[in-house]
Amino acid sequence: MKNILIIGAGKSSSYLIKYLLDKSDKENLHLIIGDISTDNTDKLINNHTNAESVVLDVFNADKRQKFIKKSDIVISMLPARLHIEVAKDCITYHKNMVTASYVSQEMKSLDKAAKKKGLILMNEIGVDPGIDHMSAMQVIDKIRDNKAKILLFESFTGGLIAPESDDNLWNYKFTWNPRNVVLAGQGGAAMFIQEGTYKYIPYHKLFRRTEFLTIDGSGKFEAYANRDSLKYRSVYGLDDIPTMYRGTIRKVGFSRAWNIFVQLGMTDDSYTIENSEHMSYRDFVNLFLAYSPSDSVELKLRSYLKIDQDDVMWEKLIELDIFSNKKKIGIINATPAQALQKILSDSWTLQENDKDMIVMQHLFGYEINGEKHQIESSLVVIGENQTYTAMAKTVGLPVGIAALKILTGEIKTPGVQIPISKEVYEPILKELEEYGIKFTEKKVPYFGYNPNNVIG
Amino acid sequence: MKNILIIGAGKSSSYLIKYLLDKSDKENLHLIIGDISTDNTDKLINNHTNAESVVLDVFNADKRQKFIKKSDIVISMLPARLHIEVAKDCITYHKNMVTASYVSQEMKSLDKAAKKKGLILMNEIGVDPGIDHMSAMQVIDKIRDNKAKILLFESFTGGLIAPESDDNLWNYKFTWNPRNVVLAGQGGAAMFIQEGTYKYIPYHKLFRRTEFLTIDGSGKFEAYANRDSLKYRSVYGLDDIPTMYRGTIRKVGFSRAWNIFVQLGMTDDSYTIENSEHMSYRDFVNLFLAYSPSDSVELKLRSYLKIDQDDVMWEKLIELDIFSNKKKIGIINATPAQALQKILSDSWTLQENDKDMIVMQHLFGYEINGEKHQIESSLVVIGENQTYTAMAKTVGLPVGIAALKILTGEIKTPGVQIPISKEVYEPILKELEEYGIKFTEKKVPYFGYNPNNVIG
Repeated sequence: MKNILIIGAGKSSSYLIKYLLDKSDKENLHLIIGDISTDNTDKLINNHTNAESVVLDVFNADKRQKFIKKSDIVISMLPARLHIEVAKDCITYHKNMVTASYVSQEMKSLDKAAKKKGLILMNEIGVDPGIDHMSAMQVIDKIRDNKAKILLFESFTGGLIAPESDDNLWNYKFTWNPRNVVLAGQGGAAMFIQEGTYKYIPYHKLFRRTEFLTIDGSGKFEAYANRDSLKYRSVYGLDDIPTMYRGTIRKVGFSRAWNIFVQLGMTDDSYTIENSEHMSYRDFVNLFLAYSPSDSVELKLRSYLKIDQDDVMWEKLIELDIFSNKKKIGIINATPAQALQKILSDSWTLQENDKDMIVMQHLFGYEINGEKHQIESSLVVIGENQTYTAMAKTVGLPVGIAALKILTGEIKTPGVQIPISKEVYEPILKELEEYGIKFTEKKVPYFGYNPNNVIG
Repeated sequence: MKNILIIGAGKSSSYLIKYLLDKSDKENLHLIIGDISTDNTDKLINNHTNAESVVLDVFNADKRQKFIKKSDIVISMLPARLHIEVAKDCITYHKNMVTASYVSQEMKSLDKAAKKKGLILMNEIGVDPGIDHMSAMQVIDKIRDNKAKILLFESFTGGLIAPESDDNLWNYKFTWNPRNVVLAGQGGAAMFIQEGTYKYIPYHKLFRRTEFLTIDGSGKFEAYANRDSLKYRSVYGLDDIPTMYRGTIRKVGFSRAWNIFVQLGMTDDSYTIENSEHMSYRDFVNLFLAYSPSDSVELKLRSYLKIDQDDVMWEKLIELDIFSNKKKIGIINATPAQALQKILSDSWTLQENDKDMIVMQHLFGYEINGEKHQIESSLVVIGENQTYTAMAKTVGLPVGIAALKILTGEIKTPGVQIPISKEVYEPILKELEEYGIKFTEKKVPYFGYNPNNVIG
């Protein structure tokens, strides 16, 4: 019997646990699932005989090491900053490990030790990062195997509300950590390269520099640029590629309206507002507008940001009840971002029957025998319910599949790694298809980066 | 004979040294002026017998302490972060000290030790901070002495080019540290309070939220809000004041045009540009604009920022030659802010006969016997030449006067302090008048904060 230790049984662990339990009889698996509390774990295990739920505080080194020692592989579903102590224990006690998080500098520094002991520390194997790496590298390797030159790589991912649950003017709900949504894009200019020209977009322009994309069967979307697309050149071995762009997908019109909050300064998380607790939503909005002894908050906002009377952006604000003088922020010493999150949560929290959706699209441009081609590869995954969400599925399944394949020895190259080698992505992508996670690939005309098809 | 040690003989020391040398025979003073190099000092001393120029590296503790020990008072004209070691030595060797810089946390922590030894560590006694504190507190104390209630305090300062040297479309040249000008306003939202309502302006809106002011004889100016006006409530003992605003003065139209750089992202100092060294000004501008295979940088910029054909902002850009494909940035790994500073320095560097100008204006609103009043107090100082600038005069004279008055015992209250007590500001403001640094005060109608005189 093989013991799998899963540390952290939050929102994103549901599908992972289901997948491993479904395989547990056939593969002779025993799951030990440790979390601060057993409440959520017990629900997810639902009395399955091949799993046990244990209380585990990851800061308790003795207990953590006791469980790691008796496992055959460790899956950490903890917040990213908490992986490192687990990883060090895995090195000490000769265990392989899987996480869905970005490789930190500290994690990276364990590479030598892992290789020396023949251990795999697999990271970035959720959805983004994860499925994006695997699906992109599969196509990139195929193009390279044909001796073609890669000219363009654009990649877009979004966690959205499914069409059947999409019932507000923003076409958006919080399907994941709301705080990350409010702070998205902050911390520095977005960087990418198009046709050999570097491009930098400051945060306050990010949501007005979106690009459109179409996903067959799902319609038109928009995407804003991610912080640093440039670093993926070396990750994917595309150092000389003239166009490299990664973005985050929203439904059309979201970003233009979101830009109102950015322009006002409501997404700022760097200072606290005086008297925030008893402040009404209306007073909160007024903090960012010029003083007037008589003019309304509404008119000041319209005038300041030049919002026309017939602009649907205005209706989006009204829908949030952001001008209410009754509703209170209710948070002591709130930052603007925290106050905004509170207002949005009133309207954007998932309801009991709401379903989420993951959408992803890659564009690959390449040249072979003097001819230019382009491949468009798209994925849409709809969640089942609020427990078995599309997010939990696309994060949990690749983690679970990777863990099993490491256990069985199908994935065996040691070191701190991410899923960009054939050994890893081929079998995982193949198995993901059984669960409906399958990209649709088609050839499209090659335009280079020239979205408006301008004739030069 | 009294020994005065001046550490740092940069741009702002010229007037200070001149003032003290002019007084040296009568007051029996001997100046020891220490700097990394004696070049500038020798010029400023010009063989005066009451001064000596010495090489002093402030990081050389032995030498620094040797000079401090043999002085009667120490004036530090070093960059702000370097004062603290000098201050600690002054405590150790029982010396009074004067600086023109903001009180740091470290400096503040020496207060107890200074008081215990009966020493004065006087800070913030240049122009801004300095003359602004003194001139404001003089009027505030007068109003308070009349048992009036203070309703409004607004204060504006600017370092500008004098009208006789004002020959570009921006009405601006670098009369002080260019880097500070490029980075001005960054690091967090501007905060102030107007009629009891807190207001926060994010950096990317700061230069579109300017207010106008008029200085008799000098015409109309504009001002953008300083980072934190709120902290001055406690400094000036005005904790319950409904309107408190501090701003930086520019000539009208500067900020609207400067906003172009902010919107593009050119003032960002947080990342470096790839290949910046050999990049033309034109390519630099293009980094911040969408890719196009054919459209010009000029049209892309006009379209992006919606600059009308007849807008003089455009001529301001042309004047800077910012679209040149010949001129190069010439800096390895430049940040956008460094590259922008290079471009601006081509056009905004002071010419040999250029003169600078300091302008300051305070507005005080108050209520007495149920009637509301307002006082407007303004200062204009024009520089003599590039050595004896208005900036050097308004920084150096208050420093020099304070040092002498501490030496003679006229200023005697010990501790780490700033010039907000009558003991300090009364004699200094009086002597500054002899040098033409004199505020013009007049009564104006009280409007409260209501710049457009809106009828509610």
